[in-house]
Amino acid sequence: MNFSQMIKDQDLFTAFKGLGLGIERECLRTAKDSQLAQTMAPKALGKRADHPYLITDFGEAQPEIITPPASSINETVQWLQALHDVYLRSLEHDEYLWPFSMPNVLPQDDEIDIIQVPEQFELDYRNFLADQYGKKLQMISGIHFNFSFSQDFLDRLYQAYSGPDTFKDFRDELYLKLTRNFLRYHWLITYLFGAAPYADGSFYESTTHPKEPPASYMRSLRNSSYGYHNFTNVQVPLTSVEDYAHKIQDLVRDQVIIEEREFYGDARLKNSQGSSQTLLDEGIEYVELRCIDIDPYAEFGISQDELEFIHLFLMAMVWIDEDADEEAVAKGNDLNSNIATLHPHEEIPAEAKEEGFRILDAMTYLVKHADLPASYLNQVDQAKAALKDPKLTLASQIIKDLKEKDYLDMGRDIGQANLAKAWDKPFLLRGFHQMEMSSQLLLFDAIQRGIEARVLDEDDQFLELNYKGHVEYVRNGNQTSKDNYISHWIMANKTVTKLILAELGYQVPSGKEYSSLDLAIADYPAYKNKALVVKPKSTNYGIGISIFKKPFSQEAYEKALAIAFKEDSSVLVEDYIEGTEYRFFVIDGKTRSVLLRKPANVLGDGKHTIKELIQAKNDDKLRGDNHRAPLTNIKMTELEALMLDQQGYDFDSVPKEGEEVYLRENSNISTGGDSLEVSDQVDPSYKAVAEAMAQDLEVKVSGIDLIIPDIHQATTPDQPGYTMIEMNFNPAMNMHAYVYEGLGRRLTQDVLNMLYPELPKRPNH
Amino acid sequence: MNFSQMIKDQDLFTAFKGLGLGIERECLRTAKDSQLAQTMAPKALGKRADHPYLITDFGEAQPEIITPPASSINETVQWLQALHDVYLRSLEHDEYLWPFSMPNVLPQDDEIDIIQVPEQFELDYRNFLADQYGKKLQMISGIHFNFSFSQDFLDRLYQAYSGPDTFKDFRDELYLKLTRNFLRYHWLITYLFGAAPYADGSFYESTTHPKEPPASYMRSLRNSSYGYHNFTNVQVPLTSVEDYAHKIQDLVRDQVIIEEREFYGDARLKNSQGSSQTLLDEGIEYVELRCIDIDPYAEFGISQDELEFIHLFLMAMVWIDEDADEEAVAKGNDLNSNIATLHPHEEIPAEAKEEGFRILDAMTYLVKHADLPASYLNQVDQAKAALKDPKLTLASQIIKDLKEKDYLDMGRDIGQANLAKAWDKPFLLRGFHQMEMSSQLLLFDAIQRGIEARVLDEDDQFLELNYKGHVEYVRNGNQTSKDNYISHWIMANKTVTKLILAELGYQVPSGKEYSSLDLAIADYPAYKNKALVVKPKSTNYGIGISIFKKPFSQEAYEKALAIAFKEDSSVLVEDYIEGTEYRFFVIDGKTRSVLLRKPANVLGDGKHTIKELIQAKNDDKLRGDNHRAPLTNIKMTELEALMLDQQGYDFDSVPKEGEEVYLRENSNISTGGDSLEVSDQVDPSYKAVAEAMAQDLEVKVSGIDLIIPDIHQATTPDQPGYTMIEMNFNPAMNMHAYVYEGLGRRLTQDVLNMLYPELPKRPNH
Repeated sequence: MNFSQMIKDQDLFTAFKGLGLGIERECLRTAKDSQLAQTMAPKALGKRADHPYLITDFGEAQPEIITPPASSINETVQWLQALHDVYLRSLEHDEYLWPFSMPNVLPQDDEIDIIQVPEQFELDYRNFLADQYGKKLQMISGIHFNFSFSQDFLDRLYQAYSGPDTFKDFRDELYLKLTRNFLRYHWLITYLFGAAPYADGSFYESTTHPKEPPASYMRSLRNSSYGYHNFTNVQVPLTSVEDYAHKIQDLVRDQVIIEEREFYGDARLKNSQGSSQTLLDEGIEYVELRCIDIDPYAEFGISQDELEFIHLFLMAMVWIDEDADEEAVAKGNDLNSNIATLHPHEEIPAEAKEEGFRILDAMTYLVKHADLPASYLNQVDQAKAALKDPKLTLASQIIKDLKEKDYLDMGRDIGQANLAKAWDKPFLLRGFHQMEMSSQLLLFDAIQRGIEARVLDEDDQFLELNYKGHVEYVRNGNQTSKDNYISHWIMANKTVTKLILAELGYQVPSGKEYSSLDLAIADYPAYKNKALVVKPKSTNYGIGISIFKKPFSQEAYEKALAIAFKEDSSVLVEDYIEGTEYRFFVIDGKTRSVLLRKPANVLGDGKHTIKELIQAKNDDKLRGDNHRAPLTNIKMTELEALMLDQQGYDFDSVPKEGEEVYLRENSNISTGGDSLEVSDQVDPSYKAVAEAMAQDLEVKVSGIDLIIPDIHQATTPDQPGYTMIEMNFNPAMNMHAYVYEGLGRRLTQDVLNMLYPELPKRPNH
Repeated sequence: MNFSQMIKDQDLFTAFKGLGLGIERECLRTAKDSQLAQTMAPKALGKRADHPYLITDFGEAQPEIITPPASSINETVQWLQALHDVYLRSLEHDEYLWPFSMPNVLPQDDEIDIIQVPEQFELDYRNFLADQYGKKLQMISGIHFNFSFSQDFLDRLYQAYSGPDTFKDFRDELYLKLTRNFLRYHWLITYLFGAAPYADGSFYESTTHPKEPPASYMRSLRNSSYGYHNFTNVQVPLTSVEDYAHKIQDLVRDQVIIEEREFYGDARLKNSQGSSQTLLDEGIEYVELRCIDIDPYAEFGISQDELEFIHLFLMAMVWIDEDADEEAVAKGNDLNSNIATLHPHEEIPAEAKEEGFRILDAMTYLVKHADLPASYLNQVDQAKAALKDPKLTLASQIIKDLKEKDYLDMGRDIGQANLAKAWDKPFLLRGFHQMEMSSQLLLFDAIQRGIEARVLDEDDQFLELNYKGHVEYVRNGNQTSKDNYISHWIMANKTVTKLILAELGYQVPSGKEYSSLDLAIADYPAYKNKALVVKPKSTNYGIGISIFKKPFSQEAYEKALAIAFKEDSSVLVEDYIEGTEYRFFVIDGKTRSVLLRKPANVLGDGKHTIKELIQAKNDDKLRGDNHRAPLTNIKMTELEALMLDQQGYDFDSVPKEGEEVYLRENSNISTGGDSLEVSDQVDPSYKAVAEAMAQDLEVKVSGIDLIIPDIHQATTPDQPGYTMIEMNFNPAMNMHAYVYEGLGRRLTQDVLNMLYPELPKRPNH
């Protein structure tokens, strides 16, 4: 079939670049001294069988990170970042991930633990592999690149086809061509990206399968005969899906391999159902490429550049006119092995070089016609340069660095640096760091607990969660199916909330609602001697609120009304209640956190200026700007200067030791305020009140603001110790997780506990 | 106790005017010929015992309209309007409500049916009354005025009090003073508002209790000895609550009256629990005034003017220094009866006149000090004039009119005019006509079905419904507790809706979302030959949508994008789907209505100009403006002119007979479009699809827009006949109830059926 002709004729170049992609990254947990970790896999990730992304492979210390099927390289990179963040932050010991395909310092064979799972068939399989190939070989890690074309491309290509084949046969033919040509030319990938030039001595020492180390560096030990391959009696033809599947079935039947998955070709034909039988029944859905080494310089095992190069390379494998036969495939495999065995500085045979340029030219053509980003062209150009000069290849770069630094030191330094990066901002989840922080925390916790997660709409903070078929949607971190629609509207309407709660006997400030400025102004005489709050009816976040604690002028009152009416067409004038405001965060019937917010402030030490104290306080990693950190940097604007001025200070004043100086009147975290978690100090009676309010309004998630003069004094029906100010729907959660003082509460765990009662509950701290 | 001194000292005038008010209006259902209706009470109102507002009193033809407790006269007036609308539109026969206190044409005693209810004690009580007083006397109707001061006033007045009384005793003292003084001076109300000068001859003809008609008109037959009162052996003292309650208990014990409710004083002391025992235990909560006649000129039985006058009069009864003793009360009762018996043109005794002016002066003082609206002062001034000139009283006005028109004709004409007003705009509910139409429909249906309803926030369309303690909140007519919170957010996000539905196998247009104008423009080449829809992602109501059915220029495309981006920060570019758009309205699992909307149009007749055809079409009462009618007037702006121009017409063209001329491209009802109900035409398979979508998204209320080329051709999984365009949360309901063509569906009934499964289901048509 002439696929390139169809693509040209129908101008399918744009569709041609559409892909489905999934990456599996194997690696090793490593102890401080570059030794294989002898500990158990992180408990936070739960049972292997239950986890969609972060599992343990052959050995207990051998994690495998699996990205979900994605339709773009960007999405795959996002997931690689996020999954590494979750994995690294789940490590319990002083461990990191080994950044090379070839192992760290391995112990004796019998001290390499295979995974500890309850499933006997998994143990049997691994014990068999250990016997057959040796445990040390199992410790080699790599990247598996699972590739498909987009359904849209396949449909349109098939439309352009006029032959007798069914869609399934047609698609099989396409993927077979891709796979055969890939095996014919994958030496180019190994040449450019081979990254396993060296292994520690411990790799070769085995009681059962000892090996002699090679005389010198090679491009890829893993792709050479030192790697982990089937024995030579395992040859599977790619002439048709039938030939391929039947051969694998024969090999298992004849006990040449113990299970189908023991076939380790550099490329495997795949159906999402997994077995060779479904491959026969339903055809090839994607191709798994298994020859790619881990790039130690890529923080997540493979770089975006390399992903783009391979994507384009695979397009070329379909595009080029030739279609490798079995002989050509065998030749390609040999070439790959040979080139892997060469010293990284060594030139490859001229004939290979020539065919390499031919492939790269085809790729250049495709970049232009498929309108691929400039970075793709850049990859091809770099590959062309590297084809001319072996020293520009990845393996060559590694051995250059190995001159400066020992292999084990280099692995440790990179691994530990990557670990530090994962912990740099633990309140963010890389890959999804553009989302609101609460959604990032929720995504982190969901992934860690083995819940499949999908971002349906990043701008709208819309997530789909799926645990073994139980689907839940979450927006903004805590908007879920568990809350009912009208409760949210009750909370959104402060007048209605107060009306209902007051009738149920709760303490609320008395007040009046105005939808006209004039009517509100007319009531000034009734208010002038009271302590009052003037606020917009429906907005959140404390915007537009004015407070009068002492008798006030009509001018001041009118100004406050004007400010409030700017935010909403209705304004509330309420009694001002003396006391401190606390946020009670109720989820699923229980108060999960109680937060006190203090206005931006510094504590004097008798030595430093206010400016210096602010700078020191802002050095905290928890402080940042633009909602990218749980606390906000204290600013030094006119507003803060004015506030200092009222206290007789400026930024250069030196407050005395122990003196608390406030920079702001309002306590919002977004203007530099401090968050203090006080769940353990507050009398339990207040939590019971908040929980009762939520229950009465049938609310599952609410941030209830109570004014309480003394949190140590219990509230009783006869002597109520609180006044309810607001019930907030969709309250911010991140400020409870990372607090200035106290024990932070990770409320996203409570949300997940509520959504998935079938999962073991996790505490929020 | 010197209440006026306390009010003055503490400046409690503002609080003093705060009130609680409930009105009961008795009346008679009347047949066309001014005869008492012989039919059953309207079935739509359900069982008497279940209805909070609209019940049947003594006779089957004797409805009683009861407003809920309100804290302002405006609110009471709202409810009087709404309850009359509901009652009048619930009448099944050619009947109306008699507008006088004195009855219509009554049949023989034995043909006056007492109410037909299952409760035997109710029947026994009424049979006793019929025997005791005669059925005809029972047919007299009146207004009961239930009055209390606001809790705020009572609390503040009690704070100003320094004596030994408890709050309960203090409050009792206040209401006792009010009641005693009221009885002393209520002759003034009868003088001014007495409105029962005449009765039809049939009133006097009785087989058991015949009476001689009076020689001439009198001010109020009802307040005279012709009215319905206890026998003279029923005298209840107002010296204390104990005296009052014990006397009533004695009367019942001694079988002078059969039940406590048979005590018919012109004023009764009341506790919300009802019995004299709770009155003793919990004190007086309000006072019931029973002497007020129905004002035939007031559409709802009593005018806002009269309500204001009585309110102020009651304030004066507390304000004046004197406090009537038993003798004074007796004097007042006599005076009332005497003045009621006078001819309406007759002057009252000079002594009475003098005390009348004293009361009115106190009222004038209160208007000024309590800062009451100008209308109050107006009432007092009119009363002063009427005190001088009896011809200015209500009774006098009535007998003046009776010179022009027979009593029975006058009653019929007023009653039928009131009925016509209730039907003038049946899609609105007077009293609540400022609310959105869907909320008005829902309120109407809830009230009719006997569900207590309360407007928590009129601007926010927020209702509280309560059926025997089962409380439900409804916002915007169909936002309820039955829907879950996230489903609404799914529908609010068109991309997410499509994503989820597509994965579930439903037909949705393929498309792409853009959050950048540049990226959207860059894709022009991929779109230029397609039929496309460009629309904002999140807005509803068809705003900002452009459609390209033929190949289009980049300029046109960019303009469409600019329009869409003006509405939302994200824009969808979707395939345009051929076919007609239908709105499937799903409530609680079933498709309750299918609506086709046609752009504004007129049908030519070969005679009239387009302008004339538009004017004729706009004459339909269903058409209006500003969302005050289910259909909208067709406009004649530049847009319509342009549309005509494209068809070669202007407003003066005369289209030929049967020719449909469109005035608009878009089919929105708000721009003059027609609504066509097609539930019965559409193949059931489409309803099943809409229902399945709602079920899959766990949505209880949704307006699902499907494009269907042929509604008569079933959709099947293999040959889907539809494409889902949008799922709308909180879809408009009123346009389904009153349609241009077809059988309208009252979806508010379906909402109530869903919220209250314990109620008998009602069909929506």
